[in-house]
Amino acid sequence: MIKTNVAELLSSDKFLQEITLKGWVRTFRANRFIALNDGSTIHNIQCVVDFENTDPALLKRITTGAAVAVTGTLEESLGKGQSVEIKVATIEILGDSNPDEYPIQPKKHSFEYLRENAHLRIRTNTFGAVMRLRSALSFAVHKYFTENGFYNFHAPIITGSDAEGAGEMFNVSTLDPLNPPKKEDGTIDYSQNFFGRETNLTVSGQLEAETYAMALGKVYTFGPTFRAENSNTTRHLAEFWMIEPEVAFNNLDDNMDLAEDFIKSVISYVLKNCEDDIKFLNDRLIQEEKGKPALQRSEMTLIERLNFIVDNNFKRVSYTEAIDILRNCKPNKKKKFQYLIKEWGADLQSEHERFLVEKHFKCPVILFDYPANIKAFYMRLNEDGKTVRAMDVLFPGIGEIVGGSQREERLDVLQQKIKELNIDEKELWWYLDTRKFGTAVHSGFGLGFERLVQFTTGMGNIRDVIPYPRTPQNADF
Amino acid sequence: MIKTNVAELLSSDKFLQEITLKGWVRTFRANRFIALNDGSTIHNIQCVVDFENTDPALLKRITTGAAVAVTGTLEESLGKGQSVEIKVATIEILGDSNPDEYPIQPKKHSFEYLRENAHLRIRTNTFGAVMRLRSALSFAVHKYFTENGFYNFHAPIITGSDAEGAGEMFNVSTLDPLNPPKKEDGTIDYSQNFFGRETNLTVSGQLEAETYAMALGKVYTFGPTFRAENSNTTRHLAEFWMIEPEVAFNNLDDNMDLAEDFIKSVISYVLKNCEDDIKFLNDRLIQEEKGKPALQRSEMTLIERLNFIVDNNFKRVSYTEAIDILRNCKPNKKKKFQYLIKEWGADLQSEHERFLVEKHFKCPVILFDYPANIKAFYMRLNEDGKTVRAMDVLFPGIGEIVGGSQREERLDVLQQKIKELNIDEKELWWYLDTRKFGTAVHSGFGLGFERLVQFTTGMGNIRDVIPYPRTPQNADF
Repeated sequence: MIKTNVAELLSSDKFLQEITLKGWVRTFRANRFIALNDGSTIHNIQCVVDFENTDPALLKRITTGAAVAVTGTLEESLGKGQSVEIKVATIEILGDSNPDEYPIQPKKHSFEYLRENAHLRIRTNTFGAVMRLRSALSFAVHKYFTENGFYNFHAPIITGSDAEGAGEMFNVSTLDPLNPPKKEDGTIDYSQNFFGRETNLTVSGQLEAETYAMALGKVYTFGPTFRAENSNTTRHLAEFWMIEPEVAFNNLDDNMDLAEDFIKSVISYVLKNCEDDIKFLNDRLIQEEKGKPALQRSEMTLIERLNFIVDNNFKRVSYTEAIDILRNCKPNKKKKFQYLIKEWGADLQSEHERFLVEKHFKCPVILFDYPANIKAFYMRLNEDGKTVRAMDVLFPGIGEIVGGSQREERLDVLQQKIKELNIDEKELWWYLDTRKFGTAVHSGFGLGFERLVQFTTGMGNIRDVIPYPRTPQNADF
Repeated sequence: MIKTNVAELLSSDKFLQEITLKGWVRTFRANRFIALNDGSTIHNIQCVVDFENTDPALLKRITTGAAVAVTGTLEESLGKGQSVEIKVATIEILGDSNPDEYPIQPKKHSFEYLRENAHLRIRTNTFGAVMRLRSALSFAVHKYFTENGFYNFHAPIITGSDAEGAGEMFNVSTLDPLNPPKKEDGTIDYSQNFFGRETNLTVSGQLEAETYAMALGKVYTFGPTFRAENSNTTRHLAEFWMIEPEVAFNNLDDNMDLAEDFIKSVISYVLKNCEDDIKFLNDRLIQEEKGKPALQRSEMTLIERLNFIVDNNFKRVSYTEAIDILRNCKPNKKKKFQYLIKEWGADLQSEHERFLVEKHFKCPVILFDYPANIKAFYMRLNEDGKTVRAMDVLFPGIGEIVGGSQREERLDVLQQKIKELNIDEKELWWYLDTRKFGTAVHSGFGLGFERLVQFTTGMGNIRDVIPYPRTPQNADF
């Protein structure tokens, strides 16, 4: 008797071999045909029960969601839609699933409903496909960096520093919230906190990653980051996973090369290794879009979009050029943009980014050399004194997927900037040390992993591409 | 001109080719020989400067820690200890390093001192080797699980649940710590917290991983977990990375097989792929142990210990057997143990675990079937009614490296246990759902990643195997 799984059996031609298989019933029809799934693939295997010789009480327990162990033989299938099936010799119910209570019925459920049942939604085709793809993407990330000489760097999650200013932070504490210890001046006495100071959840591992790049050369982080922002959108999570490579001696051009090569590589990986799941999600999206007005439908299918990324060069455009294009474009002149572009220095919104990618250039775009005053303190100032060596990679459908920069490597320029922004230099003593001792040109970027998963799966809401989403008013499970 | 790195050059035999190389000066001796490192390997490459034809002002700036760009030709080396060297044509100082201020001098520093300079310690041989190994181990983990049909599952970090009881938790909040909103009864009004409830940092992703295993079959987590415990030891961190596989239909024997195969596989991977770093750490440890009294030295070198794990079967011993052995062993009878083993039911301490591994069995040990009342609520109760299907993998030097169990899959038994422990069943409604709908035997374990890195690198203090350790009174950087 061979222990096996559905994925193996479906590609097997060893007919008549005796096998045993465990999984969950997806459907049971005509008292005879079980569609069995075990998570190893999106496909079910058909198990044919000899219902005339099976106890009716047992047949009744073969319901959607039940866990069963099946023994039998693998046979060529005469039915439509599958090449093999299992002729069941014996079936054992491992765990029942009361059909009147089971929340996942064999019918279409709304994503909102499934979010409330996030612990069970993974038993549906869509979420199985999404989470298998998420896992494959995650591996592709590690594989790409490892094969290219990068070292994985685990940035700290709890941080005493709040200098980066990437967003609102969550406070981490062991103090009694009702009666926190106070100093004489009435403020909280954080010396009694677990870490002897005020601590927060990290918004980015970049600054720490820079310290490692300045010794190991090429490093990357891949870990959770946090933003305590009250953003109830389809693109924001309070807890999300971020990928941040950082490379010594890379300038902004090298950084763009890396971002483009990296994204193409991980998307190629899943196109090659997750064909069935991508095909399913592709068809799902086509169905979903049929319900939309023609104008709102995508011009490309999911698979076309993924190939589009892999096959096209990313167009590199300076911020200044982009502003010229936007200022003179139809939607700006006709006041169709929510935020009109009036002058150089404007911060670009998602509508502008998507216009550039989807309507103007019709390919992925890398914008670079942004105005210094709309970007972070650590970005390298250009000779013009008003732009910094920042870059954003813009994708169809989602806008910004990557934000990065060449870092300011000059101690005096960095100190001046920190002063202007009223950041406490003492907080960043260790960061400044990298500029004091053996400083060098270096660059890196951040990619929100869930944005990548959203793009690759075609899922509209970011809450549907992470197992247990954390958003305002929601930390269930 | 070819852009390259030290690792490539050291294994190259393309002499006379013109190359350019960027890195950091480790030492500069006789005004002539630069030992240059760029993080790509533990080895430095020797760069020979023609000092007679070089500006003395520039020579003065070639100091330990300085970043330089060197162009020249690769030559066969006549010197001892290296096969190739670079004949320098031009050298450019990218970033100076004032030798009077640079904290990392070319001499031995204590680990305590280096911890205070965690942002720079990565520039030493020891920490370079440790962190490259850590990175390789991390990749080996993802590779093993991917190749064995597991899906990576990102468990939530912020959690509303505190039911697992694995340890003290950190509170996560956006409430004003000085004036938190209060309800009429004077307690904190958590409805105004970001997530609309009280939230903590996760102590384990296991319960959530179980929900995914019951659909995808085989999953694993690899993410940060947190314990707010005031443990100032060489084995504890407040923030550490944990690996937690969970497999549907696996019983405890399968679980032991998985743990053994997994550990052997990742250690084999680094033995094969990180030879230079392991050799360096092996020699470092030999030197360190020379300073210890003979009795405290390890019987095996680091490399011997790693091969010992890969080459030996893990001995599987029931808790009951282990208690018999411990009760009758010399250190127990002669009262050498700090905690004497008097009777069945005693919780084993590190000293007992290490005795079993190092003195009695002299091989890695898996203890199983522990008393129910010293283990977690979710472990499967044996037929004897007093032991549970728990397992701990014990390693020489560090004691417990893995803790796992077959999970209680029977709804009624689990509910009873939850009741006995006064856990609020409502908190775990989603966890109990996995037992209500299609329940099945399943098992998993947790492995503290830093313990594995400690074992593989031979580092004595866990604070030295994670880039920025978080411990009581310390969240620097």
